[in-house]
Order: sequence, then C-alpha cells, then structure tokens
Amino acid sequence: MKKRSVFILKGNIVYSKNQKEFSICENGYVVCKDGLVEGVYKTLPFKLGGNPIRDYGDALIVPGFADLHVHAPQYSYRGLGMDMELLEWLETNTFPEESKFCDLEYAEKSYRIFVENMRKSATTRACVFATLHRPATLLLMDLFEKSGLSTFIGKVNMDRNAPDYLREETNESSEETLKWIEEVIGKNYSNTYPILTPRFVPTCTDELMKQLKQIQRKYTLPFQSHLSENPGEIAWVKELCPWSEFYGDVYDKFGLFGGDTPTIMAHCVYSDEREIRRMKENGVFIAHCPESNMNVSSGIAPVRKFLEEGLHIGLGSDIAGGSTENMFRAMAHAVQSSKLRWRISDDSLKPLTAEEVFFMATKGGGEFFGKVGSFEPGYEFDAVVLDDKRLAHPQPLDVRSRLERMMYLADEREVAGKYVRGKEIDIS
Amino acid sequence: MKKRSVFILKGNIVYSKNQKEFSICENGYVVCKDGLVEGVYKTLPFKLGGNPIRDYGDALIVPGFADLHVHAPQYSYRGLGMDMELLEWLETNTFPEESKFCDLEYAEKSYRIFVENMRKSATTRACVFATLHRPATLLLMDLFEKSGLSTFIGKVNMDRNAPDYLREETNESSEETLKWIEEVIGKNYSNTYPILTPRFVPTCTDELMKQLKQIQRKYTLPFQSHLSENPGEIAWVKELCPWSEFYGDVYDKFGLFGGDTPTIMAHCVYSDEREIRRMKENGVFIAHCPESNMNVSSGIAPVRKFLEEGLHIGLGSDIAGGSTENMFRAMAHAVQSSKLRWRISDDSLKPLTAEEVFFMATKGGGEFFGKVGSFEPGYEFDAVVLDDKRLAHPQPLDVRSRLERMMYLADEREVAGKYVRGKEIDIS
Repeated sequence: MKKRSVFILKGNIVYSKNQKEFSICENGYVVCKDGLVEGVYKTLPFKLGGNPIRDYGDALIVPGFADLHVHAPQYSYRGLGMDMELLEWLETNTFPEESKFCDLEYAEKSYRIFVENMRKSATTRACVFATLHRPATLLLMDLFEKSGLSTFIGKVNMDRNAPDYLREETNESSEETLKWIEEVIGKNYSNTYPILTPRFVPTCTDELMKQLKQIQRKYTLPFQSHLSENPGEIAWVKELCPWSEFYGDVYDKFGLFGGDTPTIMAHCVYSDEREIRRMKENGVFIAHCPESNMNVSSGIAPVRKFLEEGLHIGLGSDIAGGSTENMFRAMAHAVQSSKLRWRISDDSLKPLTAEEVFFMATKGGGEFFGKVGSFEPGYEFDAVVLDDKRLAHPQPLDVRSRLERMMYLADEREVAGKYVRGKEIDIS
Repeated sequence: MKKRSVFILKGNIVYSKNQKEFSICENGYVVCKDGLVEGVYKTLPFKLGGNPIRDYGDALIVPGFADLHVHAPQYSYRGLGMDMELLEWLETNTFPEESKFCDLEYAEKSYRIFVENMRKSATTRACVFATLHRPATLLLMDLFEKSGLSTFIGKVNMDRNAPDYLREETNESSEETLKWIEEVIGKNYSNTYPILTPRFVPTCTDELMKQLKQIQRKYTLPFQSHLSENPGEIAWVKELCPWSEFYGDVYDKFGLFGGDTPTIMAHCVYSDEREIRRMKENGVFIAHCPESNMNVSSGIAPVRKFLEEGLHIGLGSDIAGGSTENMFRAMAHAVQSSKLRWRISDDSLKPLTAEEVFFMATKGGGEFFGKVGSFEPGYEFDAVVLDDKRLAHPQPLDVRSRLERMMYLADEREVAGKYVRGKEIDIS
C-alpha cells in the first residue's frame, strides 16, 4: 500500500471561507495530505506529529491565486498601445501580434517569457487563451506543464471578421481543434488541460459554434470566451445575430453557456438583468478584469451585483488589456474601479472590500478548477508564501493589514514559496 | 576663475517640450553644464569633446519626475484602511497616525523608510506635507537634504476640526511656523525648502489663514494645500465659510491662492468653471492624484479640461491616499481614470495620452520648481536613467513603446541612475 504523503507549512495562514471575512490563523499550521488540505491548526494535533514541517516564520501563507482570463501571446505587448478602444485595439495591436505565433521560434521566445513570469508570480491556476495556431498552442502547454502550474489552455478559433492572415475556414478551425485535442490527449499532461476557446461571437460563425459544440460533447471540454465587454462589441453582436435575446444568449443557443460544462465568460461589464439571470441559472463563471476594463476604456462591471446574486466570479489579469500578471494588482484595481463606479455612476452598489476581492482571487475563481482556492479541508493544496519584509514599516502590523497592503504594493518579490496540488514549484 | 563643470550622458534621450509629443533622440547625448542642460545632441559637437561621457548604452534617459503632492508621515500606512471616504479616513487613519510624529524616535524610523524609497525612485522633485510637529518636520528636511532630492517640505497647520491630540491653538500654530522657518534658515540647506502648508480649509480658521499670509509676506514662501477633493468636504467648506464664492475662493480671499507666490492645490476633482478660471488667472498649479482619487472614492478630475485651458498641472502620488511613491503608477492611473471618466460620465473629454501624462510628470509639475522637468537648454539638469531589461520582450521595441510600457510596469528596479541639478544621486 502506498504510504500517505503528509507535510505541513507553518506561518500566518489566511484564506477565505466566504466573501465577507478572512479566516486567519496566526502562527498556525496548514497541513497537506496527498495533495489536499487536511486542515488548518493553531496547535498541531498529536496525530500529525512526526511529519515534516516547513517553517516560514512571520510570512503569510495564502491559497494561490487563480487568473481566470489571460492571453498568453499578448504578454509580449503588455503596457503598449494603450490609447485605443477594444475593437480598434484588436485590429491594430492584437491581430498583427498574434499572427506572429505561426512562427514556432518566435512563439517559444515569447511564451517562455510569459510562463517564466507566471511561475514566479503568486498565481497557481490560470485559464489561458493561446492563438489559433495549433503547434504554438501545444508548445505553450508544454511550457506550462513543466512550470507545475495548473492551467486550462485554449487554441483560439476565429473564422470571420479577422484579417486573412489570422482567420481559419470554418471546417479548418474545427478540424484543427480536433487535431489539437487528440495531440493533447497523447501528451498525458498532469497539470495542463485543453479548454474550448472561440475568441468571441464577432469572430466565430454560427456554423463554427455548432461544430465546437459537437467537439465539446465528444470530449467533455470546458469553455471560455468573452462577453459584454464594450458597447461597440455588443451592438455588433446584435447585428451579427439578430435572433439573439442578448449577447450571452448567442453562446447559450449553441449550448456553450454553462449548464453541464464549466464555462468562463470574461468581462460582463454591460450584462443586463436577463444575461445575469441566465449566467446564474447556468452556473457560468465571470472573469472580472478591472485593469483591462480601464485600459481599453470598456467601463466598470457591476461586481457587487454579481456577488449579491451569488454568481460565480473570479479575477482575470486579461493581459494585454491588463498590463501585468500580478494578481495583487487585479485585486487593487477591482477595489479601485468599484469605488469610481460607486462615486460616478451608481451609488446603489457599494465599493468592494479587501475581503471580497481576495475571495474572488482565490476561492471565487479557484472553484472553476474544482475544490480550489481555500484551505478548508479537502481543497486541493495550492499555497503561496508571502514574505513582505521588503515593504518596510515603522511598527508591527496585524495580519489582515499586511495582506491588504500587499494588494497595493506586492509583486513577485514577495513570493517566497509556492505549492500547487501539494507539489512545490520552483520559483527561482 | 572657477572652471566650468561639464559632463555628458549617452543613451536614448526622451523628454517633453509640450504635451502633445515626446522629443526623442535615440543614441544621443544630453549635456550638463554647471547644473543646467546645455543641450541634447544626436552627434556631439566638436566644442564639447574632451568632457566626461557616461555611456548608459540602450537605456532611456528622461527628466526626473516631480511628485507635486505627497504626505511623508502617511507612508507608514500606505495601502491600508482603503475602505473609507476622505473625511472618515482622516479621522480613523490619518489623524491617529500623524499624532505619532510628536515622538522623534518614531518619526526618524518612519521618515527614514520614506526618504530611502523616494531616493531610489525615479522622482527628483517633491512637494511634501509633514505633520504639525516642528521637530519632526525639521528631521524630515534633514533626511531629504541628505538624499540630494530637491524638495519643498511643509510643517502642517491645523487649529480646528482636528482631535485634541493633533490640534494647535491659532497663535501657537503660526508661532511654531515662524520658529520652524527661522530654524530652516539656520540650517542653510541647499536642496530643501520650506513651504506653507495649512492642511485644508476645514482644519484652519480664518484667523490662522490671515496669520499665515503675514508669514508668507515676510518670507516669500510658496504655498500648498488641498482643494475640491470630495463632495462632503466641499459642502463642509461652504458651511464653514458661507461668505466664499467657491472652495478655492477661501484661499484666495486670504491671498493664499497663487498670484505672486507659487501655489499648489491638490486634487481639484470638483472644481467648477469659476474655480478653474481663478486658478488660471492666478497661475495656481494643480496636483492631479489619480490613485488617491480612486482609493478614497473621490472621483476623477477633468484633467483634459485643465490641459486645454492651459492651467499648470502635474501629478502627485498623494501617499497614503495613493499607495506608492512610484510615479510610473501615477502616470498609468492618470490614463486609466481618464478613460473611465470618458466612458462613464463625460465623453466630451477624451482620455489622456501617454505623452500627456509624461508631460505632467516631468515638465508640467517640474515648472513649480522653476525651469525643471525638460532637457531643453537652460533647464536644471534632473535626469533619470531607466534600464528596462528586466521587462523581457521577444523582439525589439522602439523608444516610445519602451517608455509607454514602463508607465504600466516599471518601478525602482528600472532606475539605473539619477541626477538632480547636475549632481549624481546615490541610488544604491
């Protein structure tokens, strides 16, 4: 019989059971047994004695962060071209840049930089858009597999409204997708999974959506796309699919809007009551991407409403709409933009709290991956050790304050250790 | 006769002559003569041969940044208590924290951290609020003097609407201010100057304002305070000074609103047409503090309007309303919040560009200090060398792109050299 594997981390344990408060265990222990959280203890129970303990001293230990929406190829132009709205930005920046990933040498150079920085960050889980290029997408998956992070990665589909150099024929798109999935299956990854990834309605014909649904049925694949990000985009979807009740209804009509299969919709800045209701009924996950929504002038999503309605919601960096893989920044931006929304456009929705954005970055988004993002017993053991001594302070701070402060000030320099599903990640 | 001192920096020179465009000289030279910019050259003129050249290779060389509004004592709680609006935040966080600076030992511990981080940042100039404590303010000035940065530092005045432990009597406040100025004169600083700093109208009686005006007349001091930051604050000012036409008119009635003396007003989120006109007539400098205006839920200032009207405007970190001394973040936040303002509340004011926020961070704010913030001939030689090789990229980027990208991604790690008025700063 295989011996059970147990190890223990010691430090200031912080995690979320719910949106309203932090669960904090100062100078406590979080125990990993066979890749799962066994429990959090102030005093280690006798029965756990004799297992290896790694003492991180005064550091904080939190569940890893889930980045629910990030475009890997766009990392190479993060922070650039930030003077355009979504649709213009896609044409001018995104499409020309993404076309370069037909060149595997370029793809490797670019993806290595991205995966390297993700590995060093506080992120343990990510849902990633690649490009429509099958070989480069597999290369990205190889790199992520090696990193030890747990990721869903999607080959992008586009068969209309994209430049010739970055558009597939409809059948070609689904055939390439099938081929890609078969190749992924052959790879026997243990950390890396495929996810269906049509870019968004404007670039995907109805016929392609139908074919993707068939592929989804055959392989039981999760799904990710974009939704209600920008007024111009929404009007365009209405033109392209006049039969739809609302934007999300397009995906739903093709059976690609939650329900049986885990689904992430990025943005939802302008989701109306009907769309919100449908997302709730179908268990769709929302990826809130506050920095991107600023940078491409989209607006501010009504996140408090999503939380109150009990929708699934996590955070996304949305590189390169967002500029950084640093999920602390996503948390700060979520609080900041919610305050501006409250002040400027709708004071019925109170600003988000540190507790709420931390919940979204951990358990809220983590649940897309299963029991992930908390230290409650039975959750997969993702943990990040945060040493904040670089952020000098003239007097002691309590643990909650140290965590709140890191949302504004921390980056990869604070990450002193990282574990995914019980395995330590090399962050050097 | 004293020999003229000339030295030359080589790199990619970027600076602003105006708000609309970068002036870029790739692989060029910027020449310092006696602490002033002699010129920028693509090819070094023969007459300058033989002078020492420091070659920074592919790095960018930009004028240093001016932080027009920052609270030194608040650095110790940056990123904390970010769930309150201005007035509540002052009572709950700010006043108790600032009261600690009556203890010189605590003040030294705290101020050392702040000045150390300012020294390492890309900031070369700052207008700083201390607390109302004279000894701690002098200590802060000693520390800044040693850092080599060029700063205006103000002992704060408050004689009403502040807790007992942080309120002066009216005469005490002006007497302490006089004493402080005399002590400053005795110090013979070469980088550090006093600036009159009543916190804001709600904490300063009319009588105190009158006395401060007398002090200003006697010593010809510049002036800094807060203006039209938050709707609750503005209503309160109207109650306290029912005779005023608008908030800024209060300062103006006491002769403390520009005109003869350089004056900075922080925020101006809600300045109306009359206030804007008066600021323009009086040459008042606006310190735009976009992150602070998010964090304490103030709103978004109409910066494009200020630029179009030709008002003086620079950027402020406004620690601890803002969380960081990093002025790159202030530039990014200025662009980001202008986009949200355009999208959500007023599409007549177009979002700010990278060129405009860089102008504000350098020449716009720098001009408060004289001919500062540009590499045009005759400007004081403030220069920061930015080495962005940490921000890996799969292919070459042009200089403008590298600068735009740094607004989103750079911090003190990119600062590879720093000069203030021709003197090199130790950034180690």
